[in-house]
Amino acid sequence: MADFSDLDGFRAALAALPDVDTAARQGAAERNSQLTKPPGALGRLEELAQWYAGWRGNPQPKITAPQVIVFAGNHGVAAQGVSAFPPEVTEQMVMNFQHGGAAINQLARAAGAKLDVHALELDRPTDDFTQGPAMSEQDMTTALATGWDAVDEAADLLVVGEMGIGNTTPAAALAAALLGGDAADWTGRGTGVDDAGLVNKTRVVGEGLALHKGQGDGIETLRRLGGRELAAMAGAIARARSLRIPVILDGFICTAAATCLEHTSKGALDHCVAGHLSAEGAHARLLEALGKEPLLALGLRLGEASGAALAIHVVKAALECHSGMATFAEAGVTDA
Amino acid sequence: MADFSDLDGFRAALAALPDVDTAARQGAAERNSQLTKPPGALGRLEELAQWYAGWRGNPQPKITAPQVIVFAGNHGVAAQGVSAFPPEVTEQMVMNFQHGGAAINQLARAAGAKLDVHALELDRPTDDFTQGPAMSEQDMTTALATGWDAVDEAADLLVVGEMGIGNTTPAAALAAALLGGDAADWTGRGTGVDDAGLVNKTRVVGEGLALHKGQGDGIETLRRLGGRELAAMAGAIARARSLRIPVILDGFICTAAATCLEHTSKGALDHCVAGHLSAEGAHARLLEALGKEPLLALGLRLGEASGAALAIHVVKAALECHSGMATFAEAGVTDA
Repeated sequence: MADFSDLDGFRAALAALPDVDTAARQGAAERNSQLTKPPGALGRLEELAQWYAGWRGNPQPKITAPQVIVFAGNHGVAAQGVSAFPPEVTEQMVMNFQHGGAAINQLARAAGAKLDVHALELDRPTDDFTQGPAMSEQDMTTALATGWDAVDEAADLLVVGEMGIGNTTPAAALAAALLGGDAADWTGRGTGVDDAGLVNKTRVVGEGLALHKGQGDGIETLRRLGGRELAAMAGAIARARSLRIPVILDGFICTAAATCLEHTSKGALDHCVAGHLSAEGAHARLLEALGKEPLLALGLRLGEASGAALAIHVVKAALECHSGMATFAEAGVTDA
Repeated sequence: MADFSDLDGFRAALAALPDVDTAARQGAAERNSQLTKPPGALGRLEELAQWYAGWRGNPQPKITAPQVIVFAGNHGVAAQGVSAFPPEVTEQMVMNFQHGGAAINQLARAAGAKLDVHALELDRPTDDFTQGPAMSEQDMTTALATGWDAVDEAADLLVVGEMGIGNTTPAAALAAALLGGDAADWTGRGTGVDDAGLVNKTRVVGEGLALHKGQGDGIETLRRLGGRELAAMAGAIARARSLRIPVILDGFICTAAATCLEHTSKGALDHCVAGHLSAEGAHARLLEALGKEPLLALGLRLGEASGAALAIHVVKAALECHSGMATFAEAGVTDA
């Protein structure tokens, strides 16, 4: 069980996370050069396999136990009309997850992944960040710990995602607060607000920025402008690193939460790849700031870990090739 | 069994292929609008599901029996030093496929697909197209029939790919002959020729073009500049259409072969999507000419159906979502 007595406890855990195993990564690179294919002909699959091998500390691993976790939270700012959907949909969708009817249920099953859903005090939305911090220190440490504890120690690949009506608004505020630019640069249509809705949403993000920007590091900014499901994703991403479990980041909201870790401790996301480029416009900019090129770009903008769940197939396939193919010597194939 | 007495027999089969079932596609569109997600939030997965439903004639289908077929052939032009690998590698790689050691073995298994491999008279390379047509009419009808007959009637998704040392050379020649531009516009490094090799390869493509360009339709051009595995892919793609089996196109060589069908009979590739954008430079241009946007762009340039096999996961996932998700009414979720 995570025991973060305060946010400094989490910061200390973040600073103590392990680094990549360079010997395993090097072993994987050597194996890759001997496989029956022209050098580089598997493109990004080759990079992915070596990255994964390094984090797992095994030059020839496979992926057999991916885990998808969806965290759900409600947001005080939703009362300001920032979403096309009413706040009760968060809980209704959690029920839909539990009954197997949502997109992520199908996508996790198709990817051979276990799906876990954690609803974080849906009856107690965060505070409206235009009025004060979204979360108390206690709220935030509880959410971080929920994320930390949600990671299965036996998982060998982690995907985290979210459900929370209104949560592209805190994500946009976090991105602007940490990376610069103004509210309009980071605010998009989310699940589909109209033109007037976009103007209103941009105003809300701007008010949050005016109140909280520059008031602390990534963790403090996450407390002030984020939400429970965003903090839980951050906690889970950090926990995965402590367990040497590579992570696939999902869309705009997941990436905004992850950026809070990177902003607090440089390199904190080295064990993560970007799964999918969201149709939410500012996601591309966010990934660029992190130096991460998404594996997929299929126009999804759903959240729920959906884009990253699709990318599980790509990472798994990369390791199937890397660890399952014959070498030139084994197959008796003439090298170039 | 296919019985093409001559190439006109194949042309007649091509002209008689069925069209999409618009009622099934419309039924799928109606279902899509009721699923528990914001409109459009699954991006290209939504388009894919409706496209697939239309071709299968079923508004709520799933994919349970994908088939991957790799055709292998040898090329007279290989003697002109157009590849980084010697011609015997074609047969060695066929053995590798049969023993399960190649990339496509891993990728097909990961995608839950059956893999079939057909080697087409490897001991009898096509003729050198700089000297005359690559294939006689008999060679070509035999290869088309091999492809036609290779498609499993029980398959519900087809991927075709190839192995053939030197075969980016005929692919470049076909693309240039059918779509215009000169040899240099379409000639790339294939499995990895050096600068001098690229100059030589471009010369070979140019000589083929000078001899065969404008000498007939797509089918005749395929006979003159193509190869057995390219003709077999074309035959399989046409056969899939006759069986209402949607197809995922692989990389540069597969797409060049497919372009011969489209050039002969406009709309002949409506049942096909582009699986992956190859790192072979001219593939993007070829897909643009066909009006097909690739599902993936992961930098592969291997052939063997590898890129398309990865895309099976995307198409399957699209149908899992489409056919497995709950509607707003079923889940009791409030619509926007």
